[in-house]
Amino acid sequence: MTGHVSLVGAGPGDPELLTRKAVARLRAADLVLYDALIDVRVLRHAPRAQKFFVGKRAGRHAMTQPAIHALMIRAARKGRRVVRLKGGDPFVFGRGGEEALALQHANIPYDVVPGVTSAVAAPAAAGIPVTHRGLSSAFLVVSAHEEQAFASAVGALQPNGITIVVLMGLGRSAGIASLLIDRGWSRGTPAAVVVDGTRPEQQVWRGTLDDLAADRVEIDGTGAGTIVIGEVVALGMQTARTAQPLRAAQAVQQA
Amino acid sequence: MTGHVSLVGAGPGDPELLTRKAVARLRAADLVLYDALIDVRVLRHAPRAQKFFVGKRAGRHAMTQPAIHALMIRAARKGRRVVRLKGGDPFVFGRGGEEALALQHANIPYDVVPGVTSAVAAPAAAGIPVTHRGLSSAFLVVSAHEEQAFASAVGALQPNGITIVVLMGLGRSAGIASLLIDRGWSRGTPAAVVVDGTRPEQQVWRGTLDDLAADRVEIDGTGAGTIVIGEVVALGMQTARTAQPLRAAQAVQQA
Repeated sequence: MTGHVSLVGAGPGDPELLTRKAVARLRAADLVLYDALIDVRVLRHAPRAQKFFVGKRAGRHAMTQPAIHALMIRAARKGRRVVRLKGGDPFVFGRGGEEALALQHANIPYDVVPGVTSAVAAPAAAGIPVTHRGLSSAFLVVSAHEEQAFASAVGALQPNGITIVVLMGLGRSAGIASLLIDRGWSRGTPAAVVVDGTRPEQQVWRGTLDDLAADRVEIDGTGAGTIVIGEVVALGMQTARTAQPLRAAQAVQQA
Repeated sequence: MTGHVSLVGAGPGDPELLTRKAVARLRAADLVLYDALIDVRVLRHAPRAQKFFVGKRAGRHAMTQPAIHALMIRAARKGRRVVRLKGGDPFVFGRGGEEALALQHANIPYDVVPGVTSAVAAPAAAGIPVTHRGLSSAFLVVSAHEEQAFASAVGALQPNGITIVVLMGLGRSAGIASLLIDRGWSRGTPAAVVVDGTRPEQQVWRGTLDDLAADRVEIDGTGAGTIVIGEVVALGMQTARTAQPLRAAQAVQQA
């Protein structure tokens, strides 16, 4: 009897932003393979599962991508129910597509459980809507990991038209901002950096594209960082003032 | 005593894609103001709340945006716990920013509960990852509602570089495709239309930009439509083959 693999999005950080379907998959799981940035409270939904950390830490993969594929496939062939748990959404820079293809080629039944993506939720937690009537009617989500791809994706954009959300760009914010300024974006364009968005330890920095380019971002923390660039960030300064932080309901320990 | 307003994302359609936090807000609600496209099963999480439909139907607003603001504010001032329930995510074309600003100006405590956005989940439900290593390292989310804004957002994009996701574009797919072809996108670029993504009545059409431009989309249904354009769509044709649809676990009645 063949088991099953679920590629599950764990959301942006706050464990309460897990979906009901993600919780159901975790409850039924025999084996959970989880990434960095997964909150230990999320893993508690899978009390009877074996849990393996397969993510990246300090630039080193705990397990290679082919090894993760092999592990999922082997477990499913033994009849086990596997949850592959990823931060955010599995198909937003999560290599979920590669894992889905590997499972398909191995003829393993699988499904994909989408999650709340940090690309939208981290800005929201800082009071920044990625779209807003009259300010931004589109948003581009891009990863800073592949520099060439980033340059070609944003390089051809009309300056100052839309919201840009950069994931995994914390260490590259100066270069990203310089690139946009070179391409004609106004130096005064509002920009924000959200670290650990939706978590108790969330930090938000706000400034301009020029501040980013000059490396004037003052923020601690080495967690997951989201950069937001566009006029909606200035709006966020307003909306954030009386907004209750998403984390209000929980004062919790982070693992 | 002032109440509280939560701007809550209900996710893409499948009620199991509601977050735990959304369910908690609904359980505590005295009043739920909900949009079109909200599944009646979602409303069952708020058994003790009054429920008002305030969305759009057949192009007509059941209630104007200022009237919605006034209703939320009045109820909160009476000490009620209000949930403003929106399809997808409140800040992705949901006018959540406008509602947040109105609440702030009225000094009403509020929070925002992000949801799983259809921009990512509807393609995923059709087996299409919006990003994929080597194929697409960015995605643009745009609404077809504001034609001028759409043209300027996608008009300056480098052809065929990234994934474009168009929300609320079902009736305008031919115009959208023609615009992209005019701007240099290849006629053979894979394209898909997902209607009622993640719901039991989900329908998927696959073809090319040329098919879209020539109005050769064969799809029934008048539900929420998501258009996906880019090489990842062809990848989706593969992954979708043995993927269990997200809806597999539920054979349910739609309200």
